[in-house]
Amino acid sequence: MMSTTRISEIAGSLGQEVTLRGWLYNMRSSKKLHFLQIRDGSGIIQGILSLQDAGPELFAAIGALTQESAIEAVGKVVSDPRSPGGFELHLKDVRRVSPSVDYPISPKEHGDAFLMDHRHLWLRSKRQHAILKIRHTIIKGIRDYFDEHGFVLVDSPILTPNACEGTTTLFGTEYFGQTAYLSQSGQLYQEAAAMAFGKTYCFGPTFRAEKSKTRRHLTEFWMVEPEVAYMDLEGDMDLIEDFLCSLVERVLNKHERDLKESLERDIEPLKRVQKPFPRMSYDDALKMIVQIRDATTDAETKAALAIEWGMDFGSPHETELTKKFDRPIMVHGYPYEVKAFYMKRDPNNPKVARCVDVLAPEGYGEIIGGGQREDDLQILEAALAKHELPKAPFEWFLDLRRYGSVPHAGFGLGVERTVAWLCGLHHVRETIPFARTMDRLSP
Amino acid sequence: MMSTTRISEIAGSLGQEVTLRGWLYNMRSSKKLHFLQIRDGSGIIQGILSLQDAGPELFAAIGALTQESAIEAVGKVVSDPRSPGGFELHLKDVRRVSPSVDYPISPKEHGDAFLMDHRHLWLRSKRQHAILKIRHTIIKGIRDYFDEHGFVLVDSPILTPNACEGTTTLFGTEYFGQTAYLSQSGQLYQEAAAMAFGKTYCFGPTFRAEKSKTRRHLTEFWMVEPEVAYMDLEGDMDLIEDFLCSLVERVLNKHERDLKESLERDIEPLKRVQKPFPRMSYDDALKMIVQIRDATTDAETKAALAIEWGMDFGSPHETELTKKFDRPIMVHGYPYEVKAFYMKRDPNNPKVARCVDVLAPEGYGEIIGGGQREDDLQILEAALAKHELPKAPFEWFLDLRRYGSVPHAGFGLGVERTVAWLCGLHHVRETIPFARTMDRLSP
Repeated sequence: MMSTTRISEIAGSLGQEVTLRGWLYNMRSSKKLHFLQIRDGSGIIQGILSLQDAGPELFAAIGALTQESAIEAVGKVVSDPRSPGGFELHLKDVRRVSPSVDYPISPKEHGDAFLMDHRHLWLRSKRQHAILKIRHTIIKGIRDYFDEHGFVLVDSPILTPNACEGTTTLFGTEYFGQTAYLSQSGQLYQEAAAMAFGKTYCFGPTFRAEKSKTRRHLTEFWMVEPEVAYMDLEGDMDLIEDFLCSLVERVLNKHERDLKESLERDIEPLKRVQKPFPRMSYDDALKMIVQIRDATTDAETKAALAIEWGMDFGSPHETELTKKFDRPIMVHGYPYEVKAFYMKRDPNNPKVARCVDVLAPEGYGEIIGGGQREDDLQILEAALAKHELPKAPFEWFLDLRRYGSVPHAGFGLGVERTVAWLCGLHHVRETIPFARTMDRLSP
Repeated sequence: MMSTTRISEIAGSLGQEVTLRGWLYNMRSSKKLHFLQIRDGSGIIQGILSLQDAGPELFAAIGALTQESAIEAVGKVVSDPRSPGGFELHLKDVRRVSPSVDYPISPKEHGDAFLMDHRHLWLRSKRQHAILKIRHTIIKGIRDYFDEHGFVLVDSPILTPNACEGTTTLFGTEYFGQTAYLSQSGQLYQEAAAMAFGKTYCFGPTFRAEKSKTRRHLTEFWMVEPEVAYMDLEGDMDLIEDFLCSLVERVLNKHERDLKESLERDIEPLKRVQKPFPRMSYDDALKMIVQIRDATTDAETKAALAIEWGMDFGSPHETELTKKFDRPIMVHGYPYEVKAFYMKRDPNNPKVARCVDVLAPEGYGEIIGGGQREDDLQILEAALAKHELPKAPFEWFLDLRRYGSVPHAGFGLGVERTVAWLCGLHHVRETIPFARTMDRLSP
């Protein structure tokens, strides 16, 4: 094959004739000129073909090209300050590689269900490119952060025999005569890993069979879960803060234009994501919510904010609470009873757990849950019993408290909620290439 | 908490007093000296405590410490050319954080099943550290390679409605009234992604419910799958070659000592992994296998090498074939009938597919499968029918041939087989933190 130039690297070919291989994204024409928007996956460039240069036959053939036809375009790269990429192509020849008849996604508006049904094609749009490239940057940023800070990647298994946080929301599968569940969290395995490697993380898909049709729920989503031996809750919050600031900075550095232009995201709130994040106890957060509730005159909001000590926060509570702050907040010390069995019971206040939730601003709510883990064998055994979990499948987990138990802590960050927050998206369905929800398993 | 020094960074504290937090890996003692092997997950260092410095009470207490007790050790960092890391610690104080009574894995030999049952503790051993750190380097090396070469990460879904390569080896789960399958390959989705982004990859766990108890099979394993638009089989082989050489070089640069010392891996064969790799057709490979078969006097080998044109190669064929070469070989053009439905039928020879398998040397066999994909709508529809696959779930996949179809190719590399090859391991069970096999789902 001839050598191909990628649009993302076209600056290096200024003044030269190049061959692009891609697709026709859009075209407008006058009597004597065709303006082709050509995409090759790495970017979009305008190509201009004149009747004079092309001759009537080629000019007519190009004019008949339809959206998403595959094309090879030969032309000279010229500088053009008015065009988004800074360059355009003065076309000499365009060859159709293959046709595209009645491409379903036209520039007009489509409904969400239609677009999700055509997700395999919708991925070609400018907006989806921006979102998924930012997703890539976020995932790479997460891995780079932990790699650069001495964490060892220790993949947790997906197929597990035990239910970490209850069985009602688990997908199960027949596994050579027993039942395996799809992991909801790699947490327990990271505790074993942290005792071996000191600082570890896992990063993979996790699954929840929740019957929730909200804008924040996917049945399959990606989560990173770091875990650190000899770290307590305060160290955990320090790590979270440093990690999140580094991640947001990275996205802003690389994607300011994608955010502003393709996604129309106001980036000022993201620029305010700086250390220190407000840290407040559950008790203080509860008081604040009660104040907001008492101050509101809107009956619906008042009802949605109903709460008393001992209850976990729901979306309405988180939304109202985060409105009071201009950056992520860290709420720690939730009631022990509402948290997972492995959370450390606070020795100074056994009613609460040494855990933390991080709530993103602008109403995005929880993106991180974490905390210190129970390192006392007896208290952990009591917690298993209290949660009515069988002891046998957790014997290996209890072993971590039998052989050199140490304080340790970690957290889980949901990738899709983070992408939604940073991109300013209302719904998580666009934050992952092929979303899986209660009513969607295809394409 | 007091500041902690990590063993991996101890060179920066030469001559200073530091606090380490970790575990007792091993200890030997004389009347007046304890030699503690202290591990903190980042490395192992020898700490020396003398009776004279410690006094009889502390000296006796330290002497009673058991393997894997959690300890805090305070001491001065001194240079010691004889020790593996180049440093040792002259201990001033050691505090036990928590006990470890009858740690199950002693320095003596244990059986495989016992070690796999104690995988959560076995991870703490030197050998497992070497393997899993090399695994980390391989995974990071794979991602870095594609990130640096303009590929966009587009995660394929795990839960899918369609069976890519037959249903017999699929794990299924009830999905809100329908059946979802755990993905065996992200391939089909990468084809949609490549049409959108030009060059893409996915990297995640994949699943096969195979009733195979071999040293090469896991039910859950990780796979990277790049896909490139406007690339043909030759381009695919060029990419594979460049990618694999870069990966092996990276592992050799970073882990020469782990390979030699912890794993006793002869690294000379790895140094020979250089471009170009031998490329041969299935027909030529078959002839070579037949020659080997005819030349052998061993009846068992002769029987295992039974083959005729049209059959796929099995492990014995791959093993004998790779013995003839000192680097990975690329076998292309397998019989069309034995390959997956999406492989491109060779227009010049419809009996074969434009596919390639990469076989690792030293008897490791297949680590990569890939090739060019069928981009002709009619041929692909015929292939679906021939494989008795229903058309409806693949309509979206056929759409990729309806709207701007282009030549495209890619491959899949199995992480665990690659780790096994580079580390020189006989069995894949040690190449992943928590292996899942037909008869193992825990811990």
